[in-house]
Amino acid sequence: MTKADSPPLAPSDKQPPHVKIPEPPAKKVGWAIVGLGQLAIEEVLPAFGQCDLAKLVALVSGHPEKAKKVAAVYGVDPKQIYDYSSYDTIAENPAVDVIYIILPNSMHAEYTLRGLKAGKHILCEKPMATSVAECEQMIAAAKTARRQLMIAYRLRYEPFNVEAIKRCREGQLGKLKTMRATNGQNTQAPNIRLSQTLGGGPLQDVGIYCLNAFRYLTGEEPIEVSATAHQPKDDPRFREVPETVAFALKFPSGTIAQGDCSFGTSEARRYDVHGTHGSLHLDSAFAYLGQRLILRDSKMASELNLSPVNHFAAEMDHFSECVLSGKESRTPGAEGLADLRVITAIQEAIRTGRTVALNT
Amino acid sequence: MTKADSPPLAPSDKQPPHVKIPEPPAKKVGWAIVGLGQLAIEEVLPAFGQCDLAKLVALVSGHPEKAKKVAAVYGVDPKQIYDYSSYDTIAENPAVDVIYIILPNSMHAEYTLRGLKAGKHILCEKPMATSVAECEQMIAAAKTARRQLMIAYRLRYEPFNVEAIKRCREGQLGKLKTMRATNGQNTQAPNIRLSQTLGGGPLQDVGIYCLNAFRYLTGEEPIEVSATAHQPKDDPRFREVPETVAFALKFPSGTIAQGDCSFGTSEARRYDVHGTHGSLHLDSAFAYLGQRLILRDSKMASELNLSPVNHFAAEMDHFSECVLSGKESRTPGAEGLADLRVITAIQEAIRTGRTVALNT
Amino acid sequence: MTKADSPPLAPSDKQPPHVKIPEPPAKKVGWAIVGLGQLAIEEVLPAFGQCDLAKLVALVSGHPEKAKKVAAVYGVDPKQIYDYSSYDTIAENPAVDVIYIILPNSMHAEYTLRGLKAGKHILCEKPMATSVAECEQMIAAAKTARRQLMIAYRLRYEPFNVEAIKRCREGQLGKLKTMRATNGQNTQAPNIRLSQTLGGGPLQDVGIYCLNAFRYLTGEEPIEVSATAHQPKDDPRFREVPETVAFALKFPSGTIAQGDCSFGTSEARRYDVHGTHGSLHLDSAFAYLGQRLILRDSKMASELNLSPVNHFAAEMDHFSECVLSGKESRTPGAEGLADLRVITAIQEAIRTGRTVALNT
Amino acid sequence: MTKADSPPLAPSDKQPPHVKIPEPPAKKVGWAIVGLGQLAIEEVLPAFGQCDLAKLVALVSGHPEKAKKVAAVYGVDPKQIYDYSSYDTIAENPAVDVIYIILPNSMHAEYTLRGLKAGKHILCEKPMATSVAECEQMIAAAKTARRQLMIAYRLRYEPFNVEAIKRCREGQLGKLKTMRATNGQNTQAPNIRLSQTLGGGPLQDVGIYCLNAFRYLTGEEPIEVSATAHQPKDDPRFREVPETVAFALKFPSGTIAQGDCSFGTSEARRYDVHGTHGSLHLDSAFAYLGQRLILRDSKMASELNLSPVNHFAAEMDHFSECVLSGKESRTPGAEGLADLRVITAIQEAIRTGRTVALNT
Repeated sequence: MTKADSPPLAPSDKQPPHVKIPEPPAKKVGWAIVGLGQLAIEEVLPAFGQCDLAKLVALVSGHPEKAKKVAAVYGVDPKQIYDYSSYDTIAENPAVDVIYIILPNSMHAEYTLRGLKAGKHILCEKPMATSVAECEQMIAAAKTARRQLMIAYRLRYEPFNVEAIKRCREGQLGKLKTMRATNGQNTQAPNIRLSQTLGGGPLQDVGIYCLNAFRYLTGEEPIEVSATAHQPKDDPRFREVPETVAFALKFPSGTIAQGDCSFGTSEARRYDVHGTHGSLHLDSAFAYLGQRLILRDSKMASELNLSPVNHFAAEMDHFSECVLSGKESRTPGAEGLADLRVITAIQEAIRTGRTVALNT
Repeated sequence: MTKADSPPLAPSDKQPPHVKIPEPPAKKVGWAIVGLGQLAIEEVLPAFGQCDLAKLVALVSGHPEKAKKVAAVYGVDPKQIYDYSSYDTIAENPAVDVIYIILPNSMHAEYTLRGLKAGKHILCEKPMATSVAECEQMIAAAKTARRQLMIAYRLRYEPFNVEAIKRCREGQLGKLKTMRATNGQNTQAPNIRLSQTLGGGPLQDVGIYCLNAFRYLTGEEPIEVSATAHQPKDDPRFREVPETVAFALKFPSGTIAQGDCSFGTSEARRYDVHGTHGSLHLDSAFAYLGQRLILRDSKMASELNLSPVNHFAAEMDHFSECVLSGKESRTPGAEGLADLRVITAIQEAIRTGRTVALNT
Repeated sequence: MTKADSPPLAPSDKQPPHVKIPEPPAKKVGWAIVGLGQLAIEEVLPAFGQCDLAKLVALVSGHPEKAKKVAAVYGVDPKQIYDYSSYDTIAENPAVDVIYIILPNSMHAEYTLRGLKAGKHILCEKPMATSVAECEQMIAAAKTARRQLMIAYRLRYEPFNVEAIKRCREGQLGKLKTMRATNGQNTQAPNIRLSQTLGGGPLQDVGIYCLNAFRYLTGEEPIEVSATAHQPKDDPRFREVPETVAFALKFPSGTIAQGDCSFGTSEARRYDVHGTHGSLHLDSAFAYLGQRLILRDSKMASELNLSPVNHFAAEMDHFSECVLSGKESRTPGAEGLADLRVITAIQEAIRTGRTVALNT
Repeated sequence: MTKADSPPLAPSDKQPPHVKIPEPPAKKVGWAIVGLGQLAIEEVLPAFGQCDLAKLVALVSGHPEKAKKVAAVYGVDPKQIYDYSSYDTIAENPAVDVIYIILPNSMHAEYTLRGLKAGKHILCEKPMATSVAECEQMIAAAKTARRQLMIAYRLRYEPFNVEAIKRCREGQLGKLKTMRATNGQNTQAPNIRLSQTLGGGPLQDVGIYCLNAFRYLTGEEPIEVSATAHQPKDDPRFREVPETVAFALKFPSGTIAQGDCSFGTSEARRYDVHGTHGSLHLDSAFAYLGQRLILRDSKMASELNLSPVNHFAAEMDHFSECVLSGKESRTPGAEGLADLRVITAIQEAIRTGRTVALNT
């Protein structure tokens, strides 16, 4: 075959007008992952392959062998592996812009504070911490360090929940009257989520999705909380934490939202919103994929045709863009703090058998 | 055409083995309808056309003109029309076996007692009455009169709810852990349901479906109730009754059930049951038709293929059969009483902001 | 209880504005059913209980015992039972206005002609007859007798198919480009549908729904037909008729429609219509109940919320109204004739292995 | 913070037993992409981020500027960019193991032959070529070169279609009787798919999915083909190719399959399989994501809960594994050849208006 035979311009290279060739990014943001548990291994690390702006550059783990293996899979330089004692020296590593904290809930505050002290921006898993006081301390530290602090509410960055928020807030259902949400799974022991010491429990680990959803769908803060819980005596998984927590929130506009969360049911992750003129249903609302969004009114039920994304890639690209541009993320520390306030009130309602008022 | 030309046995008359020619009933049970409101006009009266054992023979109404018109449509002898003052003379009418009371809730007790005194069996709409005391009085009166008293819980006679009960009780979902139910609609004024005096309100009129469902799905009586309500000040419909009531029930086995009901939302009628191994979803759970029953586990979601029936015809045929056979119905007065106990506890929980314990 | 105590106007009798009390009909139309096969027993006879304008007054059957039993169930005077030799004397029965012919396909023409001669209006099951010539003869006889002849295309009277027609014809999908329909079931022997002598076969008995749908959805007559069939040699059910027939129709506007029908599959009854801008899906399209109508475009898939009706009651009330008013039905003999033309062309295409042109 | 303060073993690092840390691959297979059209840009290149065994190492394009930009986005060394005249020198590049040909259909044969001559393994987009003769030549060339040739039937590597095949072949539906498939879209001009010269057309570009599905679901080769097509005269897009093609295939076991494909409808991509005991429905069957697989029998309709994958990553990893292990792929050249035989028969059936027999 000679050059003359070959097409000067291959026909497949004629792009239809709508084919968009992505722009090469000026710079990718460097990320360190702290904690190589299930979420990191199964979801976060693979998601870097779908990021446009975030690149994995460092790992922090208490297990040198595991960290080496993970580094090999993802092409991380073995020199970029830290353990928990060398963690603070990450301050001297210019390749790391962001630290993503994927540790047990009870360790979020400490590793966030140390990471901020090291001059890095922080993405911290939810729940932000184990108390309102810790949250306030973390927010203050970020302000002092002039670094960004984002809480990993991935659903705020995926298109189905984003669309649900839009529909609810723009009044497509009329006034919002009632909501229900459930987030349940069968949690197998041993699991840090079953440890109160480590900040686990169904409310902290899965229930937070329901209450966060109630807040982002209404755009309001609750004024009243009632709750109940079940902690079976004959199931060794639930020595420290309840199996099931159910709660009701009342919002200033009159919306009543009921949520339940459980570590003892088959997988259940949905929410339903009812307004004066229609309703909205998202199922799965909270899983990593498989969202289906239904709108209903008296004439029809419609499933929207939206393109799913990888939640973790979307969230990490969003924060990378914030870090590059200096603008604040959609879910800063204040979001995590607001949820902790509600969690604290739910715990009080369970303890006292009384409706708890929240000052907003 | 001569006789010889015609087939001695028309081929279409050869029945495939599975064609069942219904048996002519020995006797049909005669029914009187008390109250010609929306439910009677739109649902109950047309359902007689689908009954095998129940036939409409009399009407009781305060509106002579309307009653005459209805009698003409349904072929009721005009002599069989009563008004509220002549109601008691129905005792002398041997054609009437059963009286179906479709009056405002506050009148259920009185018309049941008068009907029992007239020697008739009673089917009474739900809620059975406006207080536990009334319910107890009605049950006692039926016992004294040696007549049957059934409460019109139509869903206990339609195949989707019956199947849901079977699946929940037989353990197909594993242990039942959480349940949610909603029953909502936009109630237009004027409507007796908006009148507290007449015994109306969202809890009494639509919420009762949720709590009854929790009881029939679990087969248990609740031991704890918490609740909240919203009564908007700027909506003239809700001067007497709340717009929305939400409540949580805790059952002896640990199941937690959350229900909400509203007169201010677009139509919403579903329940969701979550167990250790799977979940069950019925939507619409409570409407007159359109039931879809979904079972889910980790491998699949399955919609059962059941044949719908007319709920009112099924309920009226069931009670007719009870009357003919002397056996007790599936939803006797005790069922109505049990619901009133829960309703009363929910009202107390709303009033006090406290969890209310129920003695069972 | 004294009269003074009872309410002069019971509150439940206050109708909300939208409660419509049906008008008593001036006259109900009297119907005779000819043939007490499965369709009559299981579907048509029970449907009278839901009719507003049609009442059952006579039965025609070759089985006196069965006819008596059926008469007892439905309250038909035993004197109003005919057999196939006394059928013509129905002319002298003024209570009978309409004869509904539910006989094997091969008998449709004869019993229609005899019924018209008896001066009655005829509702004839589909397929109208076994040949184009028979259809033409039936239409001519109705004209001569000045009686109405309607073919029992029940789907033209039920709201889901009616809505589908509206959406397709009004251009909501853009131009119609492709359609697919299937109507399949597992037909058990013995069954008249498996007899070619009696006019049976999958094309005549279930495939006709597909081709009729293609015609009513497009509003056009096909211009080209191709087809194929399968008749398994090892299945004794299919000695006379094929198990499966598949065909493609081309319409003047360019729409291509593919249908299949089978007596050897589990139940399958749906159609799909694809246009330039959207698609429409009805499943079940052809069963007696359970219709679900979905519209799709690039943004969403919507299920319409329509109220189902009893197909047979709707069809019989429609024809009763035509008889009372003198206006022609939506599915006169011409509709049945048009389908027979297509059936004939499909049979020719199977036989010859060639595309058959239809003159329209 | 001192070392003593930090946990020697962070609790999140305790893996639940089911967390699998992926093994670092011994070697990743190097891929060159030939043709940077829409499919490459939008689907194939981003999929490398989700591959375990395939890595992108080279690009072949007629557009140097575009190639440079794409190389920058995906981290390809600019020296690894070829144009159509330098393509053959890829033989000297040891980093390239596999060439993936994503060119217009008419160029598949040439670039496959040249790639094989360069000693590389070939993944070639479907349809494999524009004639049976070309396919045979390609297969022979691969044999001579001792290199693997795989056709890019991505659906054979994604779990929903794989499960559908399993269910159909293992008899879960009973004997397969009828099938329908549709693959339609609104193709906008200018587009190489609208060019007959370039080997485009609805049958070649989207209809091939339907006929390939019929073959993989039955596991048989068709014995008879009938077909029809529509080429509107008033639409400038369809000067060279039809808008719509519909065809019917008959298989040796008696299964009849009807497919249609169109460049003039809104998106439609599904198949339905009907057997003696049940049916199977996949929608979308052919799109890049959003598969939903439904199984139906007389008792229920079940949607299977399968985990979706990126089709292109799955296909490229599969072929990488074949290249590493030397075992043949699931879709070698013979698969592409079989489809071309059917395509050729469909074209003949359209041209002649006759059923075409296929020798198998």
